[in-house]
Amino acid sequence: MLQERQLVEKIARALSSRKRGTSRLRLGIGDDAAVISPTGRFEWVLSCDTFLEDVHFRMKTHPPDSVGYKALARASSDLAAMGATPRYALLTLALPAARTGSWLDAFLRGMARASQELGIHVIGGDTTKSRTVFVSITVLGEIAPGRALTRSGARSGDIIYVSGTLGRAQLGLELVLRGHVRDRQLRALVQPHLYPKIRLKLGSWLARHHIATSAMDLSDGLSTDLARLCTASQVGAKIYASKIPSAVIPAPAVRILGKHIPDPLQLALHAGEDYELLFTISPRQAKKLNRAPGAAALTPIGEITRTRQLLLVDTNGRTIPLKPQGWDPFR
Amino acid sequence: MLQERQLVEKIARALSSRKRGTSRLRLGIGDDAAVISPTGRFEWVLSCDTFLEDVHFRMKTHPPDSVGYKALARASSDLAAMGATPRYALLTLALPAARTGSWLDAFLRGMARASQELGIHVIGGDTTKSRTVFVSITVLGEIAPGRALTRSGARSGDIIYVSGTLGRAQLGLELVLRGHVRDRQLRALVQPHLYPKIRLKLGSWLARHHIATSAMDLSDGLSTDLARLCTASQVGAKIYASKIPSAVIPAPAVRILGKHIPDPLQLALHAGEDYELLFTISPRQAKKLNRAPGAAALTPIGEITRTRQLLLVDTNGRTIPLKPQGWDPFR
Repeated sequence: MLQERQLVEKIARALSSRKRGTSRLRLGIGDDAAVISPTGRFEWVLSCDTFLEDVHFRMKTHPPDSVGYKALARASSDLAAMGATPRYALLTLALPAARTGSWLDAFLRGMARASQELGIHVIGGDTTKSRTVFVSITVLGEIAPGRALTRSGARSGDIIYVSGTLGRAQLGLELVLRGHVRDRQLRALVQPHLYPKIRLKLGSWLARHHIATSAMDLSDGLSTDLARLCTASQVGAKIYASKIPSAVIPAPAVRILGKHIPDPLQLALHAGEDYELLFTISPRQAKKLNRAPGAAALTPIGEITRTRQLLLVDTNGRTIPLKPQGWDPFR
Repeated sequence: MLQERQLVEKIARALSSRKRGTSRLRLGIGDDAAVISPTGRFEWVLSCDTFLEDVHFRMKTHPPDSVGYKALARASSDLAAMGATPRYALLTLALPAARTGSWLDAFLRGMARASQELGIHVIGGDTTKSRTVFVSITVLGEIAPGRALTRSGARSGDIIYVSGTLGRAQLGLELVLRGHVRDRQLRALVQPHLYPKIRLKLGSWLARHHIATSAMDLSDGLSTDLARLCTASQVGAKIYASKIPSAVIPAPAVRILGKHIPDPLQLALHAGEDYELLFTISPRQAKKLNRAPGAAALTPIGEITRTRQLLLVDTNGRTIPLKPQGWDPFR
C-alpha cells in the first residue's frame, strides 16, 4: 500500500514538466504550498471544477486516462470561456487505496497529456483517501487587464454564436455507457465525451480583439447555459432550430442505440459537456469573425432580445418558449 | 429542492464581503471564473485542502458550522506555514440535495466567520451533488518576493520550535466523538478540534524578519511532520520528550474518557490537526523570537542534526528512534 508521501511523489513525477509555464514558478509540488511570481502585466483568472465518480464518470465504463484528461480539460474550459491563457493548476484527488496503483497511473497519464496540450502546469494540490474517486481542479490563467470575457455584456440586437457541433458529447456518453469505449469504428464518436477539445484559441482571440460582448462555455447544455448568459446580461434571446449545428448520428451508432436514438435537435439544445463556446457579438463586428481561429466552425444561431424571454423558432417556423432543460445536478 | 443556480446564490450571499481583500478583485462568484489583478509587488502562495465526510468529520457528531469554519481554517494554515497573508479562496462543495437546507446554512455561517477572522475572501468555486459531503478549498495568499518559508532550509545545529500546545485537537476529537459537543464545561477542550486557530501572525512575522530557516504547519502530527521537514531539508533531528508542550487532561475529560485517557506525550508526538507551526532557526537568531507575536507560546523542543535520523530523548533520558506515527490517510 502506498503512503501519502509516495502518492505525492508519484503524482509529481507524472505531472512535472520543465517545458511551459514554469518561468514564474518559484516553488511547486512538495511543500505546504506553491509559490508563483506574477508580473503585474496580466490579470489572473481563477476557477475550479469538480469531477466525481458516479456523478460525472463511472469506474466500470470510463477509461482512467480519460478521467484524468477530462478533469483538467473541463476545468480549463472555464478559462477558455473568459478568454484567458491557462498557466497553472492545483489537483485535489481523493481516492480509495485500491485505486492508487494502475488506475492512478493511467489517470495521471491522461492528465499529463491534457496538461501538455493545454499548456497548463500542475503545481500543487492535496490527496486523501475516500470511498469513491473525487477530483477537484483549480485552474489559473492569465489575461490582459480588462479583457476577460464575461456573461454579462450581451446587448439587445447582438448575434448569438456557438462554436462546433452540439450534442456530440452526450452521443459519445450513450455509446460509452453501452460499453463501446474501445470500438475502433466508434472512436470518433466517443472522443468528444472522453477527451473533449477545449476552445482556448477561440476564447483568447475573442478577448484579445475585444469582439465578443459576452461569452461562456457550454458545459450544461445550450438551453440552460443560454438562460444563464441572458440572466447575467439582463436580456432575452431568440434562437432558430434550423440554425443550431447538431450532431449527425451515423449508421454504426444508430445500430447500437436502436430505439433509443436521441433526437439530434434535443441533444443540441439540452445535452451538456460539449465545452464549445457560446458568445454574442454586435452585428457590426460579425464580419471580423472570418479571421477567428476555426472560423468555419462558428455558427450564428439567433439574436439577443430586449424582452427577457428565451424563445425558440422551431423547424416549422413557430416561435415557442425555450425552457432550460440541461444538466443541473440538483434537479 | 434547490437548483444549482439558487445554491450558488445562497453561497454568494452568505460569503460575500465588501470589507477585506476585495480591492484587487475584478470579478467574483457568478461567472465562469473569478478575476483578480495582481500588483507585481507580491508573490502568490497557493494551496488546496480537502475536508471529507467520514474521513475528516462525521455528520452525526460534528456541528455543520464547525465543518465550514474548519475547512477554511485548515486550508489557510498552509498559508501561515509559508508566512503568507491570506487573500482569496475558491470553494468546491459537493453535497447531497438533503444537505442544501439548514445544514448548508450553518456550514456557510461557520465559513463566513472563518473568512472574517482570517481576512480571506471567497471569490469563486464549484458545486455539485454527491452522496456524502466533500469540501475542497483552494487558498491564495500574498508574500513579499523571496520570503516564503519552506520546509527545505533547516541546517544542522538549528533549534527546532513549535508554537502552542500539542495534542489538544485530538483530545477535542475524542470528546466530540463521544457526543460532548455542546457541553459547556468542555467547551474549551473541544474548540481546538472544531474551530482551530491558525498561526497567521506568527508565520507572517517569521517570514518578514527572515528568521526561520524552515517552517511547516503541524497537520498530521509532530513525528510525521518533523520527518517531512527533515526529508525536505536533508537533515535529521533530535527532540526532547521533556520539552514538548503537551496538553494537560483536566478532570472532566478524565471522567469521560475513563480508561481510554490518552497519554499526553503520545498525543503531542503523533496526533494531528493542531495547526501549530513547526519551525527551525539558527541559535544566533533565537533571542529575536522574544519579539514574535505570541512569543510566550513558542517552545524549543530540540535541534537539527547532520545524521539523517529522527531521535527522541525520552523522559528517562534514553535516546530512541522516533518513528512517524501521525496521520496518513493511506495507512
